[in-house]
Amino acid sequence: MTTIAFDAMGGDYAPDDVVRGAAWISLDTDINVILVGDEKKITDILKDVKHNPENLSVHNTTQFVGMDEHPKEALEKKPQASILVAAQLVRDGKAEAMVSAGNTGACILTCAKTFSKIPGIQKAALASVYPTEIRRGEKNDPFSLILDVGATINVTAKDLVSFAIMGSSYASRISKNPKPRVAILSNGTEEIKGSPEMLEAYKLLKQYPKINFIGNIEGIDIPKGTADVVVCSGFTGNIVLKMLEGVSETVVGLAKFAYKKRFAWKIGLFMLKGAISQLKTITDWEQYGGAPLLGFDNLFIKAHGRSKAKATSNAIKVAAKAVRGGLIQEISSSIKDFSFD
Amino acid sequence: MTTIAFDAMGGDYAPDDVVRGAAWISLDTDINVILVGDEKKITDILKDVKHNPENLSVHNTTQFVGMDEHPKEALEKKPQASILVAAQLVRDGKAEAMVSAGNTGACILTCAKTFSKIPGIQKAALASVYPTEIRRGEKNDPFSLILDVGATINVTAKDLVSFAIMGSSYASRISKNPKPRVAILSNGTEEIKGSPEMLEAYKLLKQYPKINFIGNIEGIDIPKGTADVVVCSGFTGNIVLKMLEGVSETVVGLAKFAYKKRFAWKIGLFMLKGAISQLKTITDWEQYGGAPLLGFDNLFIKAHGRSKAKATSNAIKVAAKAVRGGLIQEISSSIKDFSFD
Repeated sequence: MTTIAFDAMGGDYAPDDVVRGAAWISLDTDINVILVGDEKKITDILKDVKHNPENLSVHNTTQFVGMDEHPKEALEKKPQASILVAAQLVRDGKAEAMVSAGNTGACILTCAKTFSKIPGIQKAALASVYPTEIRRGEKNDPFSLILDVGATINVTAKDLVSFAIMGSSYASRISKNPKPRVAILSNGTEEIKGSPEMLEAYKLLKQYPKINFIGNIEGIDIPKGTADVVVCSGFTGNIVLKMLEGVSETVVGLAKFAYKKRFAWKIGLFMLKGAISQLKTITDWEQYGGAPLLGFDNLFIKAHGRSKAKATSNAIKVAAKAVRGGLIQEISSSIKDFSFD
Repeated sequence: MTTIAFDAMGGDYAPDDVVRGAAWISLDTDINVILVGDEKKITDILKDVKHNPENLSVHNTTQFVGMDEHPKEALEKKPQASILVAAQLVRDGKAEAMVSAGNTGACILTCAKTFSKIPGIQKAALASVYPTEIRRGEKNDPFSLILDVGATINVTAKDLVSFAIMGSSYASRISKNPKPRVAILSNGTEEIKGSPEMLEAYKLLKQYPKINFIGNIEGIDIPKGTADVVVCSGFTGNIVLKMLEGVSETVVGLAKFAYKKRFAWKIGLFMLKGAISQLKTITDWEQYGGAPLLGFDNLFIKAHGRSKAKATSNAIKVAAKAVRGGLIQEISSSIKDFSFD
C-alpha cells in the first residue's frame, strides 16, 4: 500500500475540490491518502462526499500558505503550514510522496528545506508535460515531458545531464515508455549549436548508453513531439510552456472570430464540435496529473493551481505510480553510474 | 528614386522566380532594381516576363553561393559571388539597400565583411515578423517583430537595449506604428525576472523616453501580440520562431485528421474553408517581405529561402520603404542619444 501526503489547503479550489479528488481516490484505488490541513473543514467536506475512510486520514494543522503569499515570508511566519507538515510526514517516513496544488514557490522552497538532494545532483528541476502530435509508450500517451520549467536561468552541462537522466527515468515509469527519446532543446539540430554548456552536455549524453539521447531538437519539434523528454534551462522551459498555452488560446479566439463572421462558418464549426472537443481532450492538462519536482530524495508532484477534483485525483495517482516504480532509487543509481569526470 | 541591389542568384527558386518578382516591381513601382547575377540567365528569363527595362538593370557576375554551401568557405572561394557584389554596390553608393533570398549565413557574413556597424552597436541583429492575434498601426498589421533571431547565444544588457532601439525604429517605419510597444521576452512579467543582463536592460529601457517600453512579456504574449517589438537573445528568438512554425503545422495536421475521421467533420471543414484560408492569409510569411538585418550602416533584407515572385517583390518593397523612411539615420541618432554610461 502506498501512502501519499496531500496538502488539502493548497490550490485555487482548496480545500473543497481537492478534498473531493482525494475522496475519489479512496474509493477507486488502494492508495492511502493523508489529508494535511484544517481537520474541521476537511471533516465537514467529507460528510457530504462518498469516500472510503480506511484509505483516507486527516493530519490536522490550521496554518497554510495562500496562493498569492510571498513564499519565503509565508513559510517563516507559518512553521505549521500544511505544505511544510506534509513534507515532514514524507521526510519522516509516514508517507512516500507529497502532492499539492498550492503556491508553487512555497512548495519548491518547502522541498528544499525539508528534503535532501540526491547525491550528484546540483539543481532540482520542475518537469511539465505538454501535448504533442506524436504519441508514445504502451499507453499511447500524447504528451512529452520538458524540464526544467522552474527557476533556473543559467544551467551547467552537469545540470543538463542530470535533467536528462531524471526526465528519462520519470517518463519510462509514468508513460511506460521503456526507452524515452531524450533531446536538448537548442537553436539548431547540429551538434555545434547552442551555448558552451549545451555543447558539453551533448558530448556527455552521447557517450552515456543508458539514455536514448537523440541529440538536439529545435522549436519546431516541440509541438510535433519529436522527443519524449526535452531538456533545457528553466528560462527556456518557461517560455516554451507559456507559448503553448498562448497558442491554444489564439486558436480558440480564431474559432470564435470565424463563428461570428458567416453563417456557413457557424454551421461548419458546429459540425466540427466533435473534432474540437477531441482536441480539447488531447490538450487537457487536467488529465496529466501535474508536474514532478525531481532531484530530491523524496518525490513531490505539483498539481496545477486551478486543479479541481479530477486533476487532483490524477496527481495523486501519478505520485503513487512513481513511488511503486521506484523512481527515486532509479534516479539515484543512474546518477551514480554516470561518471562526470 | 530608390535603388535596390538584388541578389538574383540566391534562393531555392533562383534565378527564375526571384527575377520574376523583380520584374513585377519594375512595372508596379518606381523602385529601381539592379539584378546581380549571371547576365545571360537573367536576360533569358526577362525575355519571357513583362517588365519595365527603365527600372531594371543587370550587373553581371557568374559566381554565386549555393543554399547548402558552407558560408565562410564559399565566400572565400568566390570573391565575385552575387551576394558579395550586391553588397559592394550598396557600400559604394550605387544602391541604397540589398535584398537576397539566398544562404542566410553567407548573407550575414557578407554584410559583416562589407558594411560597417553603426557606432555604438556591438552586435547586429536579424529581426523577423510573426503573425499575432492583435493588430497594430495605421495598416492594421497582424504581426509583431522579434529580434534577435540570428546567432547570438549570450547577450549583454547593451545588446538588448540596442535591439530594442533598432526594432522600434524599424516597426515605426514599416508598420507605420508611431509608438511601437517594445518588451523583453522573459520568464515572468515582473521586473525581477530574467538573467542579470535582462534586469539591467530593463532598468536602462525604463529610463529612455524615446522607446515605448512596456516591460517584460512571457511566452503567452507571443501569439497574442502584446508587444509590437519583442527583444531577446538569438537563441531564444530561434526557438520562438521555430515553435510558431511547428504549431501551424500541428493545426493543419489536426485538421487533416478530422477530415478523414467523419463525414460531418468533412462537411464542417469544407464550410470553414473561407475561415481557414483567411487564417492562412494572416499567417502567410510571403506577405511580410522578409527579415531585416539591423545594426549595419547599410540595410539588408533577407527574404525567405523559399521565396517565389510574390515574396521577392514584397522584400524589395520593404527595403525601399525602409530606405525612404530614413531607417539607418534614425537608428544612428537614437543610439547616439542613448547614454549607456
